[in-house]
Amino acid sequence: MTVLDQMEKRPPTLLAPALPDLLVVRAEVDMVLADFLARKAQAAPGPEMTPLFTALSILLDGGKRLRAHLCITGWYAGGGSGEREPVVRVAAALELFQAFALIHDDVMDGSDLRRGRPAAHHALAAAYVTGGGRLRRAAAHGLAAGVLLGDLALTLSDELLLAGPGDEAVRRIRPLLEAMRSQLVYGQYLDLLSTGRPHDDVEAALRIARYKTASYTVEWPLRIGVALAGAGDEVHEACSEFAIPLGEAFQLRDDLLGVFGDPSRTGKPVGDDIREGKATVLMALALRLASAAGRRLLSGSAGNRDLTDADVRRVRDVIEESGARRRVEKMITDLCDAALAVLGGTPFPAPAAEALRQIAGMATVRQS
Amino acid sequence: MTVLDQMEKRPPTLLAPALPDLLVVRAEVDMVLADFLARKAQAAPGPEMTPLFTALSILLDGGKRLRAHLCITGWYAGGGSGEREPVVRVAAALELFQAFALIHDDVMDGSDLRRGRPAAHHALAAAYVTGGGRLRRAAAHGLAAGVLLGDLALTLSDELLLAGPGDEAVRRIRPLLEAMRSQLVYGQYLDLLSTGRPHDDVEAALRIARYKTASYTVEWPLRIGVALAGAGDEVHEACSEFAIPLGEAFQLRDDLLGVFGDPSRTGKPVGDDIREGKATVLMALALRLASAAGRRLLSGSAGNRDLTDADVRRVRDVIEESGARRRVEKMITDLCDAALAVLGGTPFPAPAAEALRQIAGMATVRQS
Repeated sequence: MTVLDQMEKRPPTLLAPALPDLLVVRAEVDMVLADFLARKAQAAPGPEMTPLFTALSILLDGGKRLRAHLCITGWYAGGGSGEREPVVRVAAALELFQAFALIHDDVMDGSDLRRGRPAAHHALAAAYVTGGGRLRRAAAHGLAAGVLLGDLALTLSDELLLAGPGDEAVRRIRPLLEAMRSQLVYGQYLDLLSTGRPHDDVEAALRIARYKTASYTVEWPLRIGVALAGAGDEVHEACSEFAIPLGEAFQLRDDLLGVFGDPSRTGKPVGDDIREGKATVLMALALRLASAAGRRLLSGSAGNRDLTDADVRRVRDVIEESGARRRVEKMITDLCDAALAVLGGTPFPAPAAEALRQIAGMATVRQS
Repeated sequence: MTVLDQMEKRPPTLLAPALPDLLVVRAEVDMVLADFLARKAQAAPGPEMTPLFTALSILLDGGKRLRAHLCITGWYAGGGSGEREPVVRVAAALELFQAFALIHDDVMDGSDLRRGRPAAHHALAAAYVTGGGRLRRAAAHGLAAGVLLGDLALTLSDELLLAGPGDEAVRRIRPLLEAMRSQLVYGQYLDLLSTGRPHDDVEAALRIARYKTASYTVEWPLRIGVALAGAGDEVHEACSEFAIPLGEAFQLRDDLLGVFGDPSRTGKPVGDDIREGKATVLMALALRLASAAGRRLLSGSAGNRDLTDADVRRVRDVIEESGARRRVEKMITDLCDAALAVLGGTPFPAPAAEALRQIAGMATVRQS
């Protein structure tokens, strides 16, 4: 039975339930996370574990809950109705999964800030010193503890994810979860291989973006929601069509914010992508479009950890003048339009489509 | 219905199936791993992923398959019979879980060797350079890629684990898996907190050993096998009684091998535990039993990465002369005896009990 058949057979109130406001969803997700983490901290072997749970809670305190919103909206888009709680638990688990990804990402990149606060490995290093650890061991301790905290977040994410929705639903979402996880690792590895070696291959940069962010930020959370509702292939396909361009637009916005964003809003120092030498679409376009002198400056700067803020400003100017920034803005608009165009022809209930429009805005027209 | 009831109702051939030889089990587990990894490598996004799968395969090539043996024996101990394949898959997944733990452990400790070969993060650093990566980025790349490879191993472990045994069995083993995972993280964190600060508190050192190794090496793999067989509480309790002392003995043997082992057999450089300043039971006892001069030498050496081999030999001599080595050997014997004594009174089929005796020997009287 297709979703369209289902829609015809359902009474109209069930067909299109009013979707909760994004703020309500956020509150529900946050409550599940707070309650779950409090129980886990209680069950942990002793007060020594407190820094792990504190660092995790602080990290989870920030964030846009984009993946949670997508998961819950996906459930409505797939015709889900009735008790929302099991879906909210899965959505909260996806936020824990995102915490895992961010913690390990920051360890790998040696990033200092995340969501405007010290990255988790820095917080753990500080807790170590406060607890009597030696200063000269603090940095190494922090990185090692960050690896562990990421592992813990992933473990807890699994636990929350599998506990809620029942055997049938778990069987349906498992392949999606597995795809999400392995794609994230592959994307991060592609990113790592190309870091420090920026090039002008836009397609290669887009491929990295697709693996490391696009799918796991938009497509899988949305389709996990759809799978929880038990919807058919047609809805999954429509979701992918909507999600893939939107996910790419999301990463492109991230690339722009990393270079041109306001650090007081992004919560990250500006220029980190340049200092790390990330092979972003923005950098690929700039390398392709800049003058010979500009290209030399870009190639010489990308991957240089010692760039001053003035150096970073010079790189920004070259990117701006090359027209790459404008091109990326245009790509974001086009990708977002392509995603929104899908919504018109989908079998989604109207309130779900409307919510996805809101989320598309949140993902692409943002300053953090 | 208890297992004893079950045993009475079963025909004697099913009651005590002949257990396969350890070598047969190993071959079966290795085949599942090779086949699964080949399929995953095939499905990965491109040839860039090859170093991840190569490093994982090389790591998995070594090892004693202790956890796999315990899982399969647990299944027989719980009265399992019939098609062994789903159990072998879970057992293989536990070896992937162990690979995850080792890879992240080596990243965190900055270890150079594992199972006689370069640690995974070194192998990944080498592959990076071979692939044209810059030498000065190689070490950082290797550590970051090691974090990712550990994440991949955990993800693949989950996938293999949950795919095999069916919904009912998955529901039974899930709490055990969750306990295994979180205990490992907690144990590793306790270990990390105490590293570089060795002390003479034997009980505290034993607690770390219990969390970081004992449970996840013996108790959970064995009980996951028991749960797959669907056995009752009585069998689980007997398994825990057997497993907890054996797991402690296993870690104590590891402590001894780390200081007194033959590197050509352990596959790890001798003295690493001392250079890292691990708060092992062996070190706690030595600090308690040594002369004042010996204690000074131990305190001054533990956690000093620059110790020469001659320095390490002096530390070894102090540990030996203090009587700590002998005491730890005695503890291993006592713990192993305690574990074996449990086997007499258990409801396990005789061949399973016999296999557990063999495994106990393998875990405690080993040179690698």
